Amino acid sequence: MFITFEGVEGCGKTTQVALLAAQLKRRGVAVLETREPGGSPVGPEIRRLLLAEGRHLGPATELLLYGAERAEHVAKVIRPALERGELVVCDRYGDATRAYQAFGRGLPRDLVEAVHSLATGGLEPDLTLWITVPVTASLTRARDRNLKHPNGEGRFEAEELAFHERVGAGYAALAAEFPERIVPVDGEGSSEEVAARVFELVERRLGL
Amino acid sequence: MFITFEGVEGCGKTTQVALLAAQLKRRGVAVLETREPGGSPVGPEIRRLLLAEGRHLGPATELLLYGAERAEHVAKVIRPALERGELVVCDRYGDATRAYQAFGRGLPRDLVEAVHSLATGGLEPDLTLWITVPVTASLTRARDRNLKHPNGEGRFEAEELAFHERVGAGYAALAAEFPERIVPVDGEGSSEEVAARVFELVERRLGL
Repeated sequence: MFITFEGVEGCGKTTQVALLAAQLKRRGVAVLETREPGGSPVGPEIRRLLLAEGRHLGPATELLLYGAERAEHVAKVIRPALERGELVVCDRYGDATRAYQAFGRGLPRDLVEAVHSLATGGLEPDLTLWITVPVTASLTRARDRNLKHPNGEGRFEAEELAFHERVGAGYAALAAEFPERIVPVDGEGSSEEVAARVFELVERRLGL
Repeated sequence: MFITFEGVEGCGKTTQVALLAAQLKRRGVAVLETREPGGSPVGPEIRRLLLAEGRHLGPATELLLYGAERAEHVAKVIRPALERGELVVCDRYGDATRAYQAFGRGLPRDLVEAVHSLATGGLEPDLTLWITVPVTASLTRARDRNLKHPNGEGRFEAEELAFHERVGAGYAALAAEFPERIVPVDGEGSSEEVAARVFELVERRLGL
């Protein structure tokens, strides 16, 4: 089973990925926890290119770099883990590309799909947990975190609010487009509260 | 005017790019000399990813990384130079992607064209000089050079001969497909002899 987490900057999904993976491991499930960009052998280098603050990258470049990293990630990390029978939990995947590059940047959706499908050979998640939060509060949280613990990855946080609102609206449109796969999870409350909501959904899907 | 040089490893095109640019400058032409991969602001980092020896990259990754670097190269280097009225001379461009990734790696040509066109917005060279040499001798020369002056960029030189023969045959097929744009130049002889052939062709096109 292949589970992805999606949402706007600061929605808390990275924490949720870790909490879900830990909880599943406690239940004896073999889990591979990974992320995009960054999970593939060339991932850290491409992640640095993509997220470095102060760097301008055109929308087509961004799309193609995400695609390149995804191609390696799927071929060398995700597919092998699924073939070993592991459950894969990934922080961002194709819906992030749709939300950020198509809805956010305004690239034609068919181009975004063409690159995604070239990179993945058609591999889509079984379940996508979309952590929903109000965009403004979430972005403030992400920027605060970046001020307190600078990690040099603030290129997207630095985008204007209107961009993040388009991304948020994009996720809503995608959830309507793929209602079987994308499940919204209320991201308000403590991370333990959100984790309990996430785990209930995953338990039901897995029949644990 | 936008001129590209193409050919298999070791064909001598990098030398020819420099000789042509120098000759044009002596004639008072404003020339921008550049190369792929590597000519864009993110080029050196992507070039390192693509050419590093001992690294395995899947064919889709390779195609998407070349596309990402080309998108930056066209938007930030080639188009601005053409708009300033400069003559751009580039070591490798789209035909290398067609020859290496479609003919060499066997990726579907339509995918290769889709990525190329996303990256370039349709910008094709006015003239492509294809330096023709026998593949085996040329590859031996490239490998010898790499042994004598290792530059850590031997990933393609290390491919088997059959791969390079497919690339060479790919260039021949492309020259037949785009006879107006791609002109074969005999790469045998001293670099000065080849440069004289190149310059004659360019002079005629430019009406110098």
